[in-house]
Order: sequence, then structure tokens, then C-alpha cells
Amino acid sequence: MRRDAADLLRFSSDPARAYAAVRSATEALAEPLSAEDAAAQSMEDASPAKWHLAHTTWFFETFVLEKLPGHRAFDASFRVLFNSYYNTVGEQHPRPRRGLLTRPSLAEVRAYRAHVDERILAHLERGASPDELAVVELGLHHEQQHQELLLTDLKHLFSCNPTAPAYAATRRPTAGSAKVINWHAWDDGERWIGHEGEGFAFDNEGPRHRVWLEAFELASRPVTNGEYRAFMEDGGYERPELWLADGWATVQREQWSAPLYWQERDGAWETFTLSGLEELRAEDPVTHVSLYEADAYATWACARLPSEQEWECAAWNLPIEGNFVESDWLHPSPASRTTDDHPAQLYGDVWEWTRSAYAPYPRFQPPEGAIGEYNGKFMSSQMVLRGGSCATPQSHMRASYRNFFYPPQRWQVTGIRLARDL
Amino acid sequence: MRRDAADLLRFSSDPARAYAAVRSATEALAEPLSAEDAAAQSMEDASPAKWHLAHTTWFFETFVLEKLPGHRAFDASFRVLFNSYYNTVGEQHPRPRRGLLTRPSLAEVRAYRAHVDERILAHLERGASPDELAVVELGLHHEQQHQELLLTDLKHLFSCNPTAPAYAATRRPTAGSAKVINWHAWDDGERWIGHEGEGFAFDNEGPRHRVWLEAFELASRPVTNGEYRAFMEDGGYERPELWLADGWATVQREQWSAPLYWQERDGAWETFTLSGLEELRAEDPVTHVSLYEADAYATWACARLPSEQEWECAAWNLPIEGNFVESDWLHPSPASRTTDDHPAQLYGDVWEWTRSAYAPYPRFQPPEGAIGEYNGKFMSSQMVLRGGSCATPQSHMRASYRNFFYPPQRWQVTGIRLARDL
Amino acid sequence: MRRDAADLLRFSSDPARAYAAVRSATEALAEPLSAEDAAAQSMEDASPAKWHLAHTTWFFETFVLEKLPGHRAFDASFRVLFNSYYNTVGEQHPRPRRGLLTRPSLAEVRAYRAHVDERILAHLERGASPDELAVVELGLHHEQQHQELLLTDLKHLFSCNPTAPAYAATRRPTAGSAKVINWHAWDDGERWIGHEGEGFAFDNEGPRHRVWLEAFELASRPVTNGEYRAFMEDGGYERPELWLADGWATVQREQWSAPLYWQERDGAWETFTLSGLEELRAEDPVTHVSLYEADAYATWACARLPSEQEWECAAWNLPIEGNFVESDWLHPSPASRTTDDHPAQLYGDVWEWTRSAYAPYPRFQPPEGAIGEYNGKFMSSQMVLRGGSCATPQSHMRASYRNFFYPPQRWQVTGIRLARDL
Amino acid sequence: MRRDAADLLRFSSDPARAYAAVRSATEALAEPLSAEDAAAQSMEDASPAKWHLAHTTWFFETFVLEKLPGHRAFDASFRVLFNSYYNTVGEQHPRPRRGLLTRPSLAEVRAYRAHVDERILAHLERGASPDELAVVELGLHHEQQHQELLLTDLKHLFSCNPTAPAYAATRRPTAGSAKVINWHAWDDGERWIGHEGEGFAFDNEGPRHRVWLEAFELASRPVTNGEYRAFMEDGGYERPELWLADGWATVQREQWSAPLYWQERDGAWETFTLSGLEELRAEDPVTHVSLYEADAYATWACARLPSEQEWECAAWNLPIEGNFVESDWLHPSPASRTTDDHPAQLYGDVWEWTRSAYAPYPRFQPPEGAIGEYNGKFMSSQMVLRGGSCATPQSHMRASYRNFFYPPQRWQVTGIRLARDL
Repeated sequence: MRRDAADLLRFSSDPARAYAAVRSATEALAEPLSAEDAAAQSMEDASPAKWHLAHTTWFFETFVLEKLPGHRAFDASFRVLFNSYYNTVGEQHPRPRRGLLTRPSLAEVRAYRAHVDERILAHLERGASPDELAVVELGLHHEQQHQELLLTDLKHLFSCNPTAPAYAATRRPTAGSAKVINWHAWDDGERWIGHEGEGFAFDNEGPRHRVWLEAFELASRPVTNGEYRAFMEDGGYERPELWLADGWATVQREQWSAPLYWQERDGAWETFTLSGLEELRAEDPVTHVSLYEADAYATWACARLPSEQEWECAAWNLPIEGNFVESDWLHPSPASRTTDDHPAQLYGDVWEWTRSAYAPYPRFQPPEGAIGEYNGKFMSSQMVLRGGSCATPQSHMRASYRNFFYPPQRWQVTGIRLARDL
Repeated sequence: MRRDAADLLRFSSDPARAYAAVRSATEALAEPLSAEDAAAQSMEDASPAKWHLAHTTWFFETFVLEKLPGHRAFDASFRVLFNSYYNTVGEQHPRPRRGLLTRPSLAEVRAYRAHVDERILAHLERGASPDELAVVELGLHHEQQHQELLLTDLKHLFSCNPTAPAYAATRRPTAGSAKVINWHAWDDGERWIGHEGEGFAFDNEGPRHRVWLEAFELASRPVTNGEYRAFMEDGGYERPELWLADGWATVQREQWSAPLYWQERDGAWETFTLSGLEELRAEDPVTHVSLYEADAYATWACARLPSEQEWECAAWNLPIEGNFVESDWLHPSPASRTTDDHPAQLYGDVWEWTRSAYAPYPRFQPPEGAIGEYNGKFMSSQMVLRGGSCATPQSHMRASYRNFFYPPQRWQVTGIRLARDL
Repeated sequence: MRRDAADLLRFSSDPARAYAAVRSATEALAEPLSAEDAAAQSMEDASPAKWHLAHTTWFFETFVLEKLPGHRAFDASFRVLFNSYYNTVGEQHPRPRRGLLTRPSLAEVRAYRAHVDERILAHLERGASPDELAVVELGLHHEQQHQELLLTDLKHLFSCNPTAPAYAATRRPTAGSAKVINWHAWDDGERWIGHEGEGFAFDNEGPRHRVWLEAFELASRPVTNGEYRAFMEDGGYERPELWLADGWATVQREQWSAPLYWQERDGAWETFTLSGLEELRAEDPVTHVSLYEADAYATWACARLPSEQEWECAAWNLPIEGNFVESDWLHPSPASRTTDDHPAQLYGDVWEWTRSAYAPYPRFQPPEGAIGEYNGKFMSSQMVLRGGSCATPQSHMRASYRNFFYPPQRWQVTGIRLARDL
Repeated sequence: MRRDAADLLRFSSDPARAYAAVRSATEALAEPLSAEDAAAQSMEDASPAKWHLAHTTWFFETFVLEKLPGHRAFDASFRVLFNSYYNTVGEQHPRPRRGLLTRPSLAEVRAYRAHVDERILAHLERGASPDELAVVELGLHHEQQHQELLLTDLKHLFSCNPTAPAYAATRRPTAGSAKVINWHAWDDGERWIGHEGEGFAFDNEGPRHRVWLEAFELASRPVTNGEYRAFMEDGGYERPELWLADGWATVQREQWSAPLYWQERDGAWETFTLSGLEELRAEDPVTHVSLYEADAYATWACARLPSEQEWECAAWNLPIEGNFVESDWLHPSPASRTTDDHPAQLYGDVWEWTRSAYAPYPRFQPPEGAIGEYNGKFMSSQMVLRGGSCATPQSHMRASYRNFFYPPQRWQVTGIRLARDL
């Protein structure tokens, strides 16, 4: 585990150290980028790296520094420019136009980061209140989310460039062959779901509550590229009976015939990665699929997607290990270790689509004020993903963690874990 | 209860009588329409009345008659023209272009109905197999769904005409005042959900299964127009903090400031009904609201929408009575009877939005073949509504019935029932 | 020449007879249509036949009857419903929603026509003022324009129906072979352009004025289907160098690969006509091409489109004869007679795209008031077409007549006449 | 006149000096821009400054160097990346995605310029053929067009930034008051139009040919902001009778109520300029208006726009002087000198919309090959503008010069000159 991950896990014992570690991790991710790379926005869903650098800083300035006596804004215009979606804070620069902000420059945004860091660290050293500490800790987990988005947004941007630029050179191990899927079973019964205990969790991970689960089994690993190609070769993208109605409409409208970033050249498949175009490796977990593709694949494979409760039930006691951003591979890879005791790769590699719509847990109440806009207002029409990916910081993940995206979205590092009724 | 409703409930004892009753009920609904009224399509979501008349007939021809020896199509082109979404059957005339089918004429479609009716009735009299009877029964419940759509689609069409035509003259009783809301409570515990027993149910209502419910309470009646106007007057449509993010984006984009069909004239509100423009009655249940509006209202009212399981739990033992299409009011109205024993108006008046995404119940499997496309493939991005409306046939409704629409849709007779945690 | 055509040409000697003739000609065109046929609208550019019937009547009510003492509107709502684009008159029902007006019914619109006809005829008999007569005459020429639109709009509507309904049975003669194109030359020099003399003309046909024309030659007949197929087979739709930039963008975006209404079946070309689907006849003039296709064809053929002045110069002294709507063929056909003296088929068969943008002639001033909106405000981004088509009334045509459509539009009976520099 | 302008005018005597002068003028314009500023694209019509720098270089590489023996591409991918619209050359990177090209970097594009410059200059010194010299000269005039676009595209980009960045500090003189408009008259008669003589001209400026012009008069100067505000205050944007039909539809759809870049703050008007937000100066020529606004203003003012022939007739003998890019004002300003002899400011300040559609002159033939795509294929649906602007290089302008844009476009430095019939 890298320093930033370890430090964040020890936030309560040394907040300043955790703060510095997470903040510098973000800068390290942005380090290979030119000012041009950091400023462009390739689609409405994505943001420029510079915007991520600034917005995560805005979070600390707005929710911590602004409340301190004598605060003066670093730049008054930033309050609007780098507000993402907090209506309680005020107006927002329109999301689709983030790529037009050539000013402030990348250098100015770095100065903004330094300015805010200095003040936050000074305040932490003076001794922050418990409420302030809670917001700082939230801000660090927030920043980790943007670390992942910085990578996935950049990947999308670079994929739009016909020269297929590389963000980083891979150092991935040569792949072995993926083991055959076997199945791990759970009995039916009442289960407790949601975050519990002392560590940090987002509001949407609670309250902890009971559910009744029917007996089910989970696949021992995610679906691989090779398996997904079998689905494609069996006419997967031409057979409406395999698809949700919305999915089939999307396939037709968008002319999908493979996962995002796949391209065929002279009969062989390549995929665009953060290291540029690569030959597709059959044994890697398939990624950059929508919920629709995940669901169609599962139907084709006579299986289904797990519910988020089933996934959480399976992951509950497992160590949080796997191919996270710290590996620097930045691409899903076959499991390095497997066991018959439990499914492999629940953590890391690919976010696993579940069949669960993103909804409030029973008795969920968002906090008062702007922070209450963090999660709750997105609880419609999105689906839950679990487990983190090769672009997620390891310390960011836990069994109760709920990520969420819309069914057609594919630019995240999403993958497929199969489940079955028993 | 009208003849068609009663007859359908006794399908197993007299299928032919049930068939004739439901089919003629559809024709009675279309009776006031001119050929022009029956041919137009006002938006992609809606279909012309003529199309409903033909498609419901197509269902019987395709899934029953076509399988009989010696079958000859009434008109070979109808197989495509009146296929809604059954990819297993083959191509479909594009949905947004249903209003361009000036041929076949309304008279020809009526002849088509008579032709198919004659053959279905003859076959029922000769003695149909259990499988065939099951499809006929499904076709009748399918036709009832289209009876409701015929009315809501027509209402939308007429609302687009500046002359505000009336489909029917109302005979609604003068409204009394709506009683103050009180709350009915349920304890937490394990509950069984889903259809059970002998009567007809759609596949999506099962399998019956256990869930764990936390303690909750339900409002004694739906939200009224008067209450909804208080929300509006309190800035409901201008306060983003009350809305789901997707909802707020929709309000901005669509410039919503009131439910569908409401219009202000000289400071007073009117609403378009199937009887033309009417002064808005404060005590009527509010209707033609999206899920977003329902959710925002609930947030404003310090409550929430019920889950579909909570709703079903509350409705389980209640008689299926209320303001259904048989009242001929065609508009939601205040409860005629209330009691302290249970919430009023769970059935009829307005479809009640729930906070539950439309998803498969545990172990749900759609049937093989084209009939399997009926429900399962729509299980993404839609929300469940419960209880039926003033445009629903009474015999169509039951406690386990799951209707579903997309969150922004407003042209159905949708309303709001509040719930609260306990 | 049919009665209506002849009568209109003698308007000044018997206005009432001309009025009755033109009005009844419109009704004769609508006679084969059901109420459903007459109510539907297949695209924004087209209008329902019922709307044409009503709007042409609205013209007389609004611009003649409304100005008479004691006038009472037939129906007050019609003033908005059937106003096309006269902002001076007031609001308009939105054009894309004309197909949603199932009320008033076709029968009511016919009653509206009878009501207005009775009053106009009575007024003409009482003796109308010269100004009133001028408006009535304009209204009749206006009505003739809508007679053509009624047919072309209906053709588009029927083409959207997979059953390919026929409006009328053709009685076209068996085609002979089209003669080889030869060229008719004109010297350079000063020419007078624009309407002159006594008969009716629209305001946009004047003032008569001088232009300087370079020497040119015109093809002896329009381009045929057979010639156009040679262009297609030579890769016409795949070679950007043949196209205007806007045209090529349109070809790509709309995926055009043939004229509108053409479809290939088992290697043979068919075309949709007002008599239903027909085998494509090589010797018929090509029609339903955009300006872009006309221009690309001309470039391919080492020629160009004529300017409207060149066309007018060629047509000036010719008798106004040809395949007009009176032939009842309703489809362009090879010339029945040709001569070496002048180009054939300048009148009738197909509207001939010119390379001239629709612009005001020198010193053009639209009239004051609502009538001034008739032509002048459309003088941007449209192109001039000349000569009339097989759907145009013969008495409607003259050498100075300027029709105009946008370059990508194809649903009119448009064709191609080649020209060359000398 | 600056060195680049003077040098280009002497191209035939010293091509290398002219080449160097124009090329370095482009770089001087881009000098104030950061790499971020140079990479962003604010709308489909505009291109990033970096793209302009590269495309103008691509022109020389593709049309000159590539034809020389032993040529090796600087970077093979540039052939597609920086091809604007030359289908004859091959594929093009999609125009709307030019802003996503963060690679090649600005530094690499500068290296590309240096690389090509070195080779072109070496070739010119070795002695280029007349054909090659003609292409180099064309390339320099092409580059001047992109110099202007670089500025107007950048202005649009900066206008999208809420912080209103400045490209350059203005050094404009304090405005005096604009003189009252008077009128300069021309008799009717035959005129010769189009380029003649020795200097450079684009293909679209010829062949020189005769036209007949009616008598007309032209306003002595362009319309000012103050005059345009009077139009606005007289309800200009709310009165459909003043507008072309397409213009009125655009006003409604785009919600226009003032020229582009105008904004009202506390009752006073400001306008965004290349020096940032400025108070609107009543005496400056109005700019950033569409053809529709120019036409509506002219109608309101009981005048009309001139034809391009009228404009050329008026400008023919005048010295090419005025507020061009060399003034470094980068904004239209009142005339510094006026005279009763001829209209002022025909050159410079603002491009003057004409009422003439952009069309080929008689006998116009584009050249063979890719260069033939330069002008001819754009001759549909665009309108001619004349005279150059404060962002045009002075040596780029001449009386026969024809600029062209679509009627709704407003981001060029466009203005209004009135004309009247006599």
C-alpha cells in the first residue's frame, strides 16, 4: 500500500499527514500531463484534469476555509467556476463548458492548491474541531474519487486522439491463463447490510439494516475478454432477445458492437489503454461495458448480475486487496492469487455492475446543508457498482462502498461478475 | 362492477363470455372517437386509438390464431404494422410513426377486430387447450392495459388542440372537502411479497418471496391539488434542494412549473381533463406528476414515497374498490368513504409512484419465446407505480400489480401517496 | 385545359366563375381522401390535406370577409388554427403540430369552405371593389399553390406507410424512349426579366428589369431516370468532388444514395408514386432530387444548372403547355412532342432547379400589411425553381413564375435541366 | 502598413521575404496565448489557435513540399489531423473534435512550422516553378484568412469564460462622435465586376464580367452601436414584420435580443472585446450581427443592404486604407477621416453584409484538383460580405474580395452598411 493510502486509513491519528498524502497523490497523477492535456474535455460526462485539481481544492476552501474567521477567497470567480453541483453553495459554471476554461492556467490552479494546502495544514496543526475534521476527511475521500475520474476522463480524451497517446508506460506482468469459473454458494437468510463500525464511510452506505436474501452463488472471478468475445461471436450484439429493451435501443442507436475502446484491425482486436493501443489479452477481465452489455452477457451465459446485497455479503470478511491504482498497472488483469475459499478479485481490477438500482437504504437521511447534496440527490436511474477498480486508490475501498453510474455509461473501468439463483 | 370486469374475473368458468366482454369494452371506449381522432399520435410515447384497437387484436391473431392449422392472415402487412415490441415475432413499424398509418382505416381495423373475434370465439367454443386459454387470458389483461392507454393517449392528443375538445361529459359528484391526512403504521418484520393463489397475475408479480421491512407509516389518502399548490406557492419548482438531481435538470430543461395539463388563466388554475378544460378542484388528488415531482413534494412535506413492498403490505387485505374506469368519471376525485382502519384510495383514482425501481423479484424468470418479452425486458430505469387509476378497469387491479414508467413521464394518471419512517 | 384553369385566366371577366372553378378543383383533389388521410402530417414541411382545405379558406375569410361590415367569424378559433405564417394577422398554431388537429373534423372544414364560398360569391355578385378583386384573385392563385402542396404532402404521407397506398390509378401512356439531349444556344446581351403586362403575377415576379446575360445553351429536355442512374452507377453518391460542401454533408448525414421515393428490390429500382409503387421508367424525367443532387449531377455531366434569368429567357415566348395536373398523370413523363426550335418540357413535368438564390429583384418592395408577408420574407437561403410540374395547375404557370425551396428539400416534384456556358 | 502586408504585396519580386513576413505575422498573433488558450475549441464553427497554426503549415507541406522529390512527412498523422476539408487529399479529423487534440503540443506545432518554413524557404531560394510560386502565394493569402479566424475564434473562446480574459490591451483612440449619415449616389448602367489585372485574387473573384445595375445610393458610413440601440429600443427584436422568416425563427429559437457579445449590466450595455469587457461606445460601428439582424435593421431604417456589385462599384477606385489588424485596435472604431467624395470605411472596421448570395460568377470554373475545393464548393446558402475588418490584414483586401458566411453566423466582425434604391 502506498503512503497516501496508508496515511488516509490513519486519518484520525494524523490528519495532516493524511491530508498531505492524498493531496500529493493527486498531483502525482497529474504530473505526466501537459497544460493542454489537463485543460481539454472530451464529453459532457468527463472533466478536464485541471478542473479535477481545482474542484477538489474548492471543496476544502468552500467547506473548511470559508468558515474560518478572516477568510479571503483565493480568487472570487473560483466559487462558481469550480463548483460541481452544489446548489446550496450557489451557481455553477456549466458542466459541458469546463473544457473552455483555458484560464485560470494549470500553473494558477497549482498555486491555488498550494495556497489552500498551506492554510488547511496550518489549521489542522492549530487543532481543528471534530466537525471540521469530519469535513476534511470527507474531502480526502472526495479527492480520491476524483483521482479515479481524472484517469478515466483522461483515458477518454486520449482515445479521441487518432494518434492514441499514452499516459504512462505499463509494467503489467505477462498474463497467465485465466482459471475456469467455479461458483461460490450462500444460503438464504436474513443479512445485515451497510457500513458499520469506526472507519470512514459515505452517508449512502448506511444506515446498516437487515435484508432477506435468497440462496445464490457467485462466480469465482470476473468475465474475461476471451469469454466476452465468445458472446460477440455468438451474435451477442445482434440478438435482441438477450437485451433489456433500453439496452437494445442503445445498441441500435449508438451502433455498439464491442466494448468501448475496442477496435478491430486486420481481424485482430486491440484496445485503447492508458499506455496507448494494446493487443487485447483474452485473459484480462473485460472492461468498459455498460450495464446493458453486462446484463446481456449474463443472460447469454444463463446467469444474472448479483444484487448489491449479495455482493456485499460475499465481500464482507475479505481483505481489501487487489489490483488498485497503487499497482500502477492501470488496467484490469487476471488474478494473481486465487483460492477455493471465496471469489477472487471482488476488490480492484473492475467495478462490478450489480442489478441493484441506486436507492436510499431504509431510514437514510442526507445531512443538512450543502454536504447533503453529496450522494442523496443522485438516487434515481443509476445502478450500483461494487468493489473498486485498477484506477481506485486502495484505501478508498470497503465492502459497503456504493459506486453508481447510469446504465449506458461505459467510460469507467466497469466489468461483469456473474451470479445465479440456487 | 361492469360486465366486462366481472366477466374477466370469471375467465376460467366462461372464457368466451370474458373475451367478448373485454373486447366490447375496448370498442365502447373508442366509440366517441371520429376516424380522425383515432388516427393521430401526439408524441412518441403515445399511440393512436386505432393502433390500440389493432394491436390488441394482433396479439390474439399472432399468439393464438396463427398457431392454429389452416390459419390465414387477415392482412399480411398487419404482422409488422401492429407489432409493438416483440422482436421474437419480427420487425415492427417504428413507434414514432404510428400516427402516419391513415391506412388501414378505422373501419378496416374494426373489421379486423370482428374477424379475429369470430375466430377466437369459435375456437374457445370448440375447446381451447390450457396453454391457449392462458394466452387468451393474458391477451385480455393486455387489452385492459391498452384500454387505459387509449384514454391517456387520447387525453394527451386532445390537450394539444387549442380548442380543448372533450372526450366525454363528466358526471362527477360535487366534491366535498378532503379530510386531513392522518397516518397508518406498520411494524417492522419479515413480509411476503408478490402474487399468490389462483387468479391471474403477470409474470413480474412473482415469484412470491420474503423481504424485511422496517417500521413505516402511510398517509391516509393521496396528496390533493390544494396541497400541491401550497408546495408550488412555497417555491417548490424553484428550490433545487427539494429535487433529485435528474429531476431538477428536467425542471430546468422542460421549464416545468406545474403538473402536466395545468394552466393558469387570470390568476386561477384550470386543468385539462377528458371532459375539456375544468377549474382545478383543490380537494381532488393531484395527478399527472412525474416521479421527480412526487419525490420533491414528499421531501418538501418532510416525508418520502413508499416502497412498493410497503404499499403492497398496506393493500394486501383490502377490497379492490375505488374510482376506476367503471365510474365513468375519468378523473381522480376525493374519497367517497374513509375509515380509520386503513388508508383510503389505495386502489383507483391515481397510480401511486413508489420509490422502488422496477426490477425482477428474486428467482424471476421470463417465459420462453415472444411472451417472455412482455415484462422482463423493461426492468431498467423505470419506477413502480401501484394501485390503478380512474382510467384502469377494476378487474385489472390487485395488490401485487406492478405498473412501471420512467421518472419524467407525466401523461399517465399518476399521483402521490406519502410515507414516513417510524 | 380544364374548366378551373381556363376560368382563372378569365378572372377579370368573370370573377365568380373563376372563384367557383378553383375552389371546386381543390375539393376534387381531396375527394379520394378519407378523413384519416386528410388529417395526418408526415413531417414538419408538410401539412395535412384538411389543413390545406381550411387554410385556403381562411385566406378568403381573413383578407376579404373580415373586412366587410357585419362579419362574424365562422369559428373564432380558426383565426389561429389556420393562419400559416402571417404575423401581422396574429398568432399561429405551430406548424409541426398541424397533424394533431383532429378537430375540427373534415366535415366541419368542408362546411367552413361552403360557408365562406357562399359569402364570397354573394359579395362578388354584389360587386366587389378593385382592391377586393385583387385579393380574391391572389387568393385563387394562393389556392392553386396549395393544390400542388396537397398532392406532394399526401405523397410523402403515403410513402411513410409500408403498405404503399395509392391516391389514384394512373392512366399514363406507355413511354417511348427519350430523345438524346441536344443543346439550344442564346447569345450574350442585355435582357429584360420579370413579369410584364396584364395578367396576374405575384409580387416577387417584378419589377421588370434589365440584366446582362453571357452566352449560354440549355439542354433540350430534363435529365431522365436512366441518365441519373448512370450517375449513381458511376459512384455519384460516393464522390465528394462532385458535390457542394453542404450537399456532401447532407448526403453523409442523411445517408442518401438515390432520389427520394426510390427503392431497390432484388436489383431493380422502384419508385413510389401517387399510384403506389411502380417500376422505375428509365425514360421519365428524374424527380424528387434536392438542389444538391441536381448540382452534383450537372457537375458530373460537365454542365451546370441554368440561372433563373437564363431559364426565363428561354421560356419567354413559348406556349404554356405540358404535363400539368390536368393530365391526371401526376408523374413526370417523357415529352410527347419535341421540336428543334426550342427546348421541350420547360413547362410542366418537373420544377427545374436553378442556380439562382431566391432574392428580391431590383426595386422590389413587398406590399404593405399582411399580404406583404406573402413572398418577400422568404428571400433568404432558398433557391428558385422554374416551370411548374405535373402537380401544378396549368393556369398557374407563366414564364416569370418563381417557385422557391431550400436546397435539401426533395418532396416537391423537382428535376434537373442542364445548361452550359458558350 | 506593416512589414508582412507590404511584403506580401511584393510577392512576385521577393517570394521568400513575403513568405517569411506572413508566417511570422501569424506567430506574432499567437504569441500572447498559453498552450491551453491555443488548444481549446469553443464551438463547431471555430478552431483552436494551435490548429490554425498547424493547418496553414499543412497547406504548404501538402501542396508544395509533398510534391518535391525525396519528401518525408514531418509526422504522417498530420495529413489527416490538419486537413480542413480537402476530400481530394483524403480523410479529415472531424471538425467538432479539433479541440480534443492536446497532442501534438503547441511546441510540436511550432517545430512543425519551423520545419516546413525551412524547407519552403530553401526551395524558394533554389528557385521554384511558376506553378509552385502560385501555390505558395495562395498559401500566404490562405494564411491571412486564418490570421483573422484565429482572432475571431479566440474571441469567442474567451467570451465563454466568465472571467472575461483579455487577449491584448487596447490602444484605441478616444472616440469622437460619429458623423450623421449622408448618401452617395450612382447612376444605373452596365458595370464590370470582378478581379482584373495583375495582383493576386482568389478564383471566386473572377471571371470579370458585365452586370446591369439600377441607380442606387450607399450610406456614408456603417451603422453605429448607438443607431442599433435605437432599433432595439424601438422593439426591433420583438417585431416580426421587420425580419426575414428564417431570421425571425432564429431570433425566437436562440432568444436573441442584442448582437453577440453584448450584455446589459445595471441598465448599461457592455460588450466583450479582445481587450475584455468594455463599456459599449455608441459611436463605434455595430458588429457581431447576423445577416438577419443586418437585414432587419435595414428594413427598420427604410433602407436595404447593398448588393455585392453595388458595393464593389462604390469601392472600385478607393485606396485600401482603414482600421485593419495592423492598427492593433482589434475593434471597429469611428472613421478617423471622412470626405464628401465617397463613403467612408468601406475598407476595414467591419465586414459588410450584402444582400447577395455567394454564387459563382458567369463562366466560373474551379481549378482542377484539391485546390479546386478552396472556394467553389461553398457556393450555396452563404452570403457575401465585403471590405474586411479590424481583424483583417490590410494587404489581404481588395475591391473584388468576396468573403462569405451563413446568414445566422455572428462571431465574425460583421457590420451593416445601408443602401437605397434611387
